[in-house]
Amino acid sequence: MDRHNKIMLQAREAKAAALQLALVPSSGKDRALRSMAMALWAGRGLILRANLKDLSAGKAAGLSSAMLDRLTLDDRRIKAMADGILDIVKLKDPVGQMIASWKRPNGLRIDQVRVPIGVVGIIYESRPNVTSDCAALCIKSGNAVILRGGKEAIHSNRAIYRVLKGALGKGSVPTGALQLVGSTDRAAVTELLQLDSLIDLIVPRGGEGLIRFVAENSRIPVVKHYKGVCHVYVGAKADLKMAEEICFNAKVQRPGVCNAMEKMLVDARVARKFLPVMLGRFRQSGVQLRGDQATRRIDTGVAAAREQDWSEEYLDLVLAIKVVKNVREAVDHINKYGSRHSDAIVTRDPKDAEAFLKGVDSACVYVNASTRFTDGFEFGLGAEVGISTDKLHVRGPMGLEGLTSYKYEIHGNGQIRK
Amino acid sequence: MDRHNKIMLQAREAKAAALQLALVPSSGKDRALRSMAMALWAGRGLILRANLKDLSAGKAAGLSSAMLDRLTLDDRRIKAMADGILDIVKLKDPVGQMIASWKRPNGLRIDQVRVPIGVVGIIYESRPNVTSDCAALCIKSGNAVILRGGKEAIHSNRAIYRVLKGALGKGSVPTGALQLVGSTDRAAVTELLQLDSLIDLIVPRGGEGLIRFVAENSRIPVVKHYKGVCHVYVGAKADLKMAEEICFNAKVQRPGVCNAMEKMLVDARVARKFLPVMLGRFRQSGVQLRGDQATRRIDTGVAAAREQDWSEEYLDLVLAIKVVKNVREAVDHINKYGSRHSDAIVTRDPKDAEAFLKGVDSACVYVNASTRFTDGFEFGLGAEVGISTDKLHVRGPMGLEGLTSYKYEIHGNGQIRK
Repeated sequence: MDRHNKIMLQAREAKAAALQLALVPSSGKDRALRSMAMALWAGRGLILRANLKDLSAGKAAGLSSAMLDRLTLDDRRIKAMADGILDIVKLKDPVGQMIASWKRPNGLRIDQVRVPIGVVGIIYESRPNVTSDCAALCIKSGNAVILRGGKEAIHSNRAIYRVLKGALGKGSVPTGALQLVGSTDRAAVTELLQLDSLIDLIVPRGGEGLIRFVAENSRIPVVKHYKGVCHVYVGAKADLKMAEEICFNAKVQRPGVCNAMEKMLVDARVARKFLPVMLGRFRQSGVQLRGDQATRRIDTGVAAAREQDWSEEYLDLVLAIKVVKNVREAVDHINKYGSRHSDAIVTRDPKDAEAFLKGVDSACVYVNASTRFTDGFEFGLGAEVGISTDKLHVRGPMGLEGLTSYKYEIHGNGQIRK
Repeated sequence: MDRHNKIMLQAREAKAAALQLALVPSSGKDRALRSMAMALWAGRGLILRANLKDLSAGKAAGLSSAMLDRLTLDDRRIKAMADGILDIVKLKDPVGQMIASWKRPNGLRIDQVRVPIGVVGIIYESRPNVTSDCAALCIKSGNAVILRGGKEAIHSNRAIYRVLKGALGKGSVPTGALQLVGSTDRAAVTELLQLDSLIDLIVPRGGEGLIRFVAENSRIPVVKHYKGVCHVYVGAKADLKMAEEICFNAKVQRPGVCNAMEKMLVDARVARKFLPVMLGRFRQSGVQLRGDQATRRIDTGVAAAREQDWSEEYLDLVLAIKVVKNVREAVDHINKYGSRHSDAIVTRDPKDAEAFLKGVDSACVYVNASTRFTDGFEFGLGAEVGISTDKLHVRGPMGLEGLTSYKYEIHGNGQIRK
């Protein structure tokens, strides 16, 4: 069978399975998830052997040590994947939840009920744990899933898939609900993205290039997780010690993630007091500093920021700094250069806080806290498929609820339209 | 200025206006809407003169009388447009509504608050009233809107737009929030659909061709309103008199709309009793009947249905009829051939009702009521932009709430991530 037919067949199987899976009760889905977790651990020999193939291919291809690290599996990481599935078992099943229910004057009762989306396609890059995380989140929320991982992890992904699919064979979740596209050719992604009569949602997880490619080529709705260009604005009435702790945490605690601070905006009224202490502390932690003219007048050791610095996601110990004259300039700057992900203000002034909260057009807007809290677990929502920077369907952390739609169930006793 | 630059400039203006409009309180938006309603009535002379140009062009181009009727404006229709805006004033503003609020163990308070989407593009065909309806719905929900109507109504749309935009000049809603693309070239739509950094949502309203064109060419998220291939299934335990009334209403009361019944499925156990009465009544109302073999064995006067009859939207007094052996076959048929819009079962058996409600993958699933109730007003939601057959973001009638997104506002007192 050629690749095109294979992908089409997998999508058809997924759609048929989705209709069945939508009717499986929570207990049946949880049983399947527990089998999947056990199978991962029992199958770790197979998975680790496959992982070695990916690692030696990766070394031969000259992958960076950071990339090789992300690709590497060991007993501990496989245990973490299995535990991750068991954590998802513990989450509340959103399917069947009554969102609203009301009665009309003509006696019709309208129930708005949460249902699975149907078939979800996940297109991702190197980490093989995404394969099990996303499979488990989709099955828990009653969705069939078509996985398409990166070529670097193809042997690991195939092994994980085989093990997970084997575990489904025994329960009430149809095995067709789990699909992995075997081809690592980018053309396979393009084909997948045309199947809008079979697939309901595409979630790309990876770098900006991948996401842009998917958004531009998909006929299927896409929930995008673009870069996180997160700001902290230190307001005129900030508690400067608190501002220092928040900015330090947001930049330094884990600089390689999407909710880390990339830009620091400092109100002109506190800049002379705040910047010397703060920048000293950043330097001690090895943070490279790039600033606007006002910043560089206060600290001549700061490099000059270029225009592209304001919109770039460094994912590293690099920070761009700008002095702004008030909350309004901070809001305008963020709405112009930010990525609608997470932004914070540090202030004791409730008016400034309100202006910032309402004015910044981002998924998560913080007052007096680090941007690093934008995360499904930190929000108390559990595991997430990603963090949406879109404004449609789901915004911010995308957990189980983000993997659902709803339907209206309408109960009558013979009503007809006049 | 060439067309490309003009569209880009309009989208930029809309985006800037959207950020302002998001902060305008309900009272300011309602004032603007009342001015718009008054201006429509005051400007009816201008609008009717423009409409005459469209009508004479339409006659010259040989438009059908049904199309010319849809295009025609008169005092009564302009009054209805103005009243429609005043009805939207009365609806509750969804912006600012607290969807959920919770506290985390670390003391962070997370508020999930409804916000406008931003900039909404509406691409529609001939009816000029869409121009004012959609402008009003978008402004009420705090969104800037870019309208792009069909070429048949271009003079009417431009006049309505000029009148509405003039009304905005006096209040707190920025005039940039309302934009009309003047070009009627399809290439203008393609250009609009590329502006994903400026426009947040596209809603196409019109025939299947337009919607498919938009879905295939848009980089911007699209909420689609595809055809309504609605079914009524008369179950084995149906109250046959009720079934007759429901099927008759769903087919005949207004056959040209998307929530009218297009296909009737009849359980084999009641077909011999039900069909003769029902088909006699349909014939009296001039309904053309097309059936499967089993139907034609019962009534030899029914024409043979072809395969494409099961998925075609007639929007006319035509009906396809199939005899099915049980609720399961009915559900499978609907999921295979339907359009996920509205489907009904008539039954007194709660088990069949439940199997149908859960099994049919459509926006609105009815028990013992006509499919004709799928409508924003009938649901009690007020005016609608359309009826979504998508499963993402909004499903079924898309009113004010469907024109919103949300953000997380997070209140801390210095929390940092450990």
